[in-house]
Amino acid sequence: MSVLIVGSIGLDTIETPFGKKQDILGGSAIHAAVAASFYGPAAVAGVAGSDFPKEHLDFLGQRKIDVSGIQIIDGKTFRWSGYYEFDMNQAHTRDTQLNVYTRFKPELPESFRDCNYVFLANFDPELQLKVLQQVKKPKLVAMDTMNFWIENKRQALHKVIRHVDLLLLNDGEARQFMETPNLPIAAARLLKLGPKSVIIKKGEHGALYFSDKGYFSAPSYPQDQLRDPTGAGDSFAGGLIGYLAGSDDLSEDNIRRAIIVGSVMASFNIEDFSLDRMKRLTRREIQERFSEFKRFSEFEAIGALQ
Amino acid sequence: MSVLIVGSIGLDTIETPFGKKQDILGGSAIHAAVAASFYGPAAVAGVAGSDFPKEHLDFLGQRKIDVSGIQIIDGKTFRWSGYYEFDMNQAHTRDTQLNVYTRFKPELPESFRDCNYVFLANFDPELQLKVLQQVKKPKLVAMDTMNFWIENKRQALHKVIRHVDLLLLNDGEARQFMETPNLPIAAARLLKLGPKSVIIKKGEHGALYFSDKGYFSAPSYPQDQLRDPTGAGDSFAGGLIGYLAGSDDLSEDNIRRAIIVGSVMASFNIEDFSLDRMKRLTRREIQERFSEFKRFSEFEAIGALQ
Repeated sequence: MSVLIVGSIGLDTIETPFGKKQDILGGSAIHAAVAASFYGPAAVAGVAGSDFPKEHLDFLGQRKIDVSGIQIIDGKTFRWSGYYEFDMNQAHTRDTQLNVYTRFKPELPESFRDCNYVFLANFDPELQLKVLQQVKKPKLVAMDTMNFWIENKRQALHKVIRHVDLLLLNDGEARQFMETPNLPIAAARLLKLGPKSVIIKKGEHGALYFSDKGYFSAPSYPQDQLRDPTGAGDSFAGGLIGYLAGSDDLSEDNIRRAIIVGSVMASFNIEDFSLDRMKRLTRREIQERFSEFKRFSEFEAIGALQ
Repeated sequence: MSVLIVGSIGLDTIETPFGKKQDILGGSAIHAAVAASFYGPAAVAGVAGSDFPKEHLDFLGQRKIDVSGIQIIDGKTFRWSGYYEFDMNQAHTRDTQLNVYTRFKPELPESFRDCNYVFLANFDPELQLKVLQQVKKPKLVAMDTMNFWIENKRQALHKVIRHVDLLLLNDGEARQFMETPNLPIAAARLLKLGPKSVIIKKGEHGALYFSDKGYFSAPSYPQDQLRDPTGAGDSFAGGLIGYLAGSDDLSEDNIRRAIIVGSVMASFNIEDFSLDRMKRLTRREIQERFSEFKRFSEFEAIGALQ
């Protein structure tokens, strides 16, 4: 079952303690689609400028990602420039150039409209809503957002959230949006906005899942090979929804597995700049790391206390 | 099997968004001993002043905690006064009065010296070392510390750490002490200082265990009833070592269970001020919450990727 991913397509200039890279492939939709593509067919919609290197489209094609929803229009591709300090938990933006995004009118190819699994990657919530109005009867719509939209387009954000099944955001954003430092309380408030479930991404601390059916805490992976955290949240979401689409199973048990799959993909994505680690990632490595996540978090019951 | 706990015995004045309490029972050894006492006999060593209310000693006695190692000397009991802001992740110290601690000479009762399980609760590392020299052949020595000692008695701290089996500290302290923002790297460096294993306590984010035999990530409990975080780390450690002593089993599987037991005890301790929640805590509640921790973190394997 194919998954549709809509979001930004960009060229990033990134500086971390491990190096500086100029105009490398990035964007929320790209990181998500590449992670999803390990689990089945994925399709991307978005916009790129006429300067977008053909090699990137070729790479997406090699991964069997349908790029027919990427509009290429005259002008420059979206660009983000940022840096991470020593602790790498926080991205600092140097510059954002929307470029062709200011002229972007989401128009999904007809074949994309009956997708059953849709991921609205981090993106302007007004555009997210326009995309959502074009899909027919999806089984699952997931969306991601960020502090910029919480601060600047709160109303539009509320509107999209009302129509999605699964909302993803990071811990700082959940606290800020719901105005409470307590994550379980923030999650309870977010669920009242409409979604069936909420995932709070906590970076090095794992992820939390909240729904009216239950709670799940995904473990921290002991990652000591972090080189560039850009795209971690997108590859988490992409792996998650790609796995759900590939297995076409929305049971709570399968959602838990999908959250671990997302954690696995994010843990690889941050080991190198851009999509470089994903380009050389193998199925065997994924399977092994999933087993590690399981081994790292299992414990047995205690006997009755005397 | 009895567990010996040495650390501070104090009267705390605490302000949180949920209220202000004056001169309530506190101290690292007290929080730890009470948590440990749910799993078997515990003994406390430390010092209190002549103003220490008899009702507190009575309470410890009711919990079958051996208080014969608590020296009562003329003068005022150790006092700590602090507050927590809205987010309650960080304790802010208003005032610390060492009082009788300045005259404390650790002198363990003879019957305490052949304890098999010893916990050096957060405390001056020079005093921790003096205690350690008095115990004979313990099966396990665990210790906790805090930023104050990392900043002010680093050499003494290194000396004690060399002699303990299990080192506990929180994530901020691990990063500060080992001068890296990366927790797995900090843990690897801490292990080089001598201990067989390291536990990094992350408050709302759970706990991480590192040893040369493996890694374990304990889940976050979705605690929305937090009223006073004081003593969370101490009750975590007390529950952990109390459970290890009670079961007298140092296998990796049992250490994992003990970490969850510690997490359970900490999650209860923070639901009310001082030891108030522990005073009304039942075995059935502990057992149920342990099961919740298990349910909240379990997931199944994925099939082979095609």
